[in-house]
Amino acid sequence: MTITITAFERSPDGGKGLARDTRVRWALEEVGLPYEVRLESFAALKAEAHLARNPFGQIPTYEEGDLTLFESGAIVLRIAEQHAGLLPPDDRARSRAIMWMFAALNTVEPPILEFSMARLFEADTPWAEARTPMLMERVRGRLRPLSERLSAMDWLDGDFSAGDLMMASVLLRLKPSGFLNEFPVLAAYVARAEQRPAYQRAFAAQLKVNAP
Amino acid sequence: MTITITAFERSPDGGKGLARDTRVRWALEEVGLPYEVRLESFAALKAEAHLARNPFGQIPTYEEGDLTLFESGAIVLRIAEQHAGLLPPDDRARSRAIMWMFAALNTVEPPILEFSMARLFEADTPWAEARTPMLMERVRGRLRPLSERLSAMDWLDGDFSAGDLMMASVLLRLKPSGFLNEFPVLAAYVARAEQRPAYQRAFAAQLKVNAP
Repeated sequence: MTITITAFERSPDGGKGLARDTRVRWALEEVGLPYEVRLESFAALKAEAHLARNPFGQIPTYEEGDLTLFESGAIVLRIAEQHAGLLPPDDRARSRAIMWMFAALNTVEPPILEFSMARLFEADTPWAEARTPMLMERVRGRLRPLSERLSAMDWLDGDFSAGDLMMASVLLRLKPSGFLNEFPVLAAYVARAEQRPAYQRAFAAQLKVNAP
Repeated sequence: MTITITAFERSPDGGKGLARDTRVRWALEEVGLPYEVRLESFAALKAEAHLARNPFGQIPTYEEGDLTLFESGAIVLRIAEQHAGLLPPDDRARSRAIMWMFAALNTVEPPILEFSMARLFEADTPWAEARTPMLMERVRGRLRPLSERLSAMDWLDGDFSAGDLMMASVLLRLKPSGFLNEFPVLAAYVARAEQRPAYQRAFAAQLKVNAP
C-alpha cells in the first residue's frame, strides 16, 4: 500500500532537517518502508484540500490507503506499531518506549519551542534580553535530568526505539543554539542518532527538496 | 494487579482538577479500574524515590506490577490499550483516536500552557500587556479549527475516545480565562465531557484530596 506524506515545498529552516516531516521520514527509513512525498506551499497548507488532512494546517500528514493521520507523534507510533524495528517486543518495554515519545513531545519540546519562538519573533522587542534567562532555565530544567539519565547508556531504555527517534529529533532543534555544548552527554546522544543510516537517508531526502 | 498513581499532596490549582493526575483518574474510571494514590509533597517530587519513577520530577506516575510510567499521555494510552472503552476496535479509527491525543498534547496544549505560564509568572512585568495579544492569538489559532471540527459532532471522531479525554482535559485549563466564551462549540464540548460519570468521579476524587 502506497504511503504518502506531506512536507514543506520550501522548509523555513532551509533544509536543516528540523521540519517535522524529517521525523516521519526517519521512522519510515528505520523500518524500511518506501514512501511518496507531496510538497505543499504555505498557501496550500491553509487550503481546503490540506485542511481536510490536518485541520490545523500543518505538515506532516500521512496517508496509507483510506487512513489519513496528522501529528508526527501519532504517525511515528502508527509506523512503529505496524512494522518491526521501533518498539521492543516486551509489552512493558513497549509502553516505556511510547512514554519517551510523549516525554519528548510534551515535556522536552515545549520549552525548546518557546525559546526558539521567542528568538524568532521577539528578538527585537525591548523585553527580549530580560526574558532570555528564564526561557533558557526552562530548557535546562528538562535537559539536566535527560543528560543524567543518558550518562550511563546509549539510548533511553535499552535498544534504540521510537522514543529515541522522537527525543533526538526534539534535541536536534537545539543544535544552532549552543545548548548542547553545555550537555556533552546529550550532544553525544544526538550525534549517535544522526549517525544512524536511516536518519542520514531521511535527512538527505529532505535536504534534496530544500537545497538551493 | 494493583495500580498506583501519584498526585500532588496539595495541588497548585486548589482542586480545580487541572493537575494531570485527573486525566489518569478519568481514564481509570472510564474503563472501571480501581487504583490507589500516593500523594507527594513538592519536596518529595524532587527526591530520589520519585525521580526514579519520573526523572523530570512531575506527577502523575503510574505503577502496575513492575511497570512504572510517567507522562499522562503514555499512561492514558496504556490504560486505553489494555482495557476496552477508550479506543475504537477498528484499527484505523484507533490510530485516529491516538492522533487526537497527540494533537491535544503537542498542538493544542503548548500555546495554552504558554499563555497560562505568562499569566502566572510574568503578570507583573512591564511587557505583560504588550505580549498578551500575541499569546491569545496563538491559543485562538488552535481553538478555531477545533471549534469548526466539533461544530457538527459531539466528539472528535465517532464515539468518545482517549482522544476526547485528552483534548477536553487540555481545554479545561481554559475555563478560568474566558476563552471558552468565544467558542461556544468548545464550551459545549467541555461541558459534555464534564458530564460523563467517569469524569465526575475522577474530579471528586482529586477534590477530596485538595478540599480545604
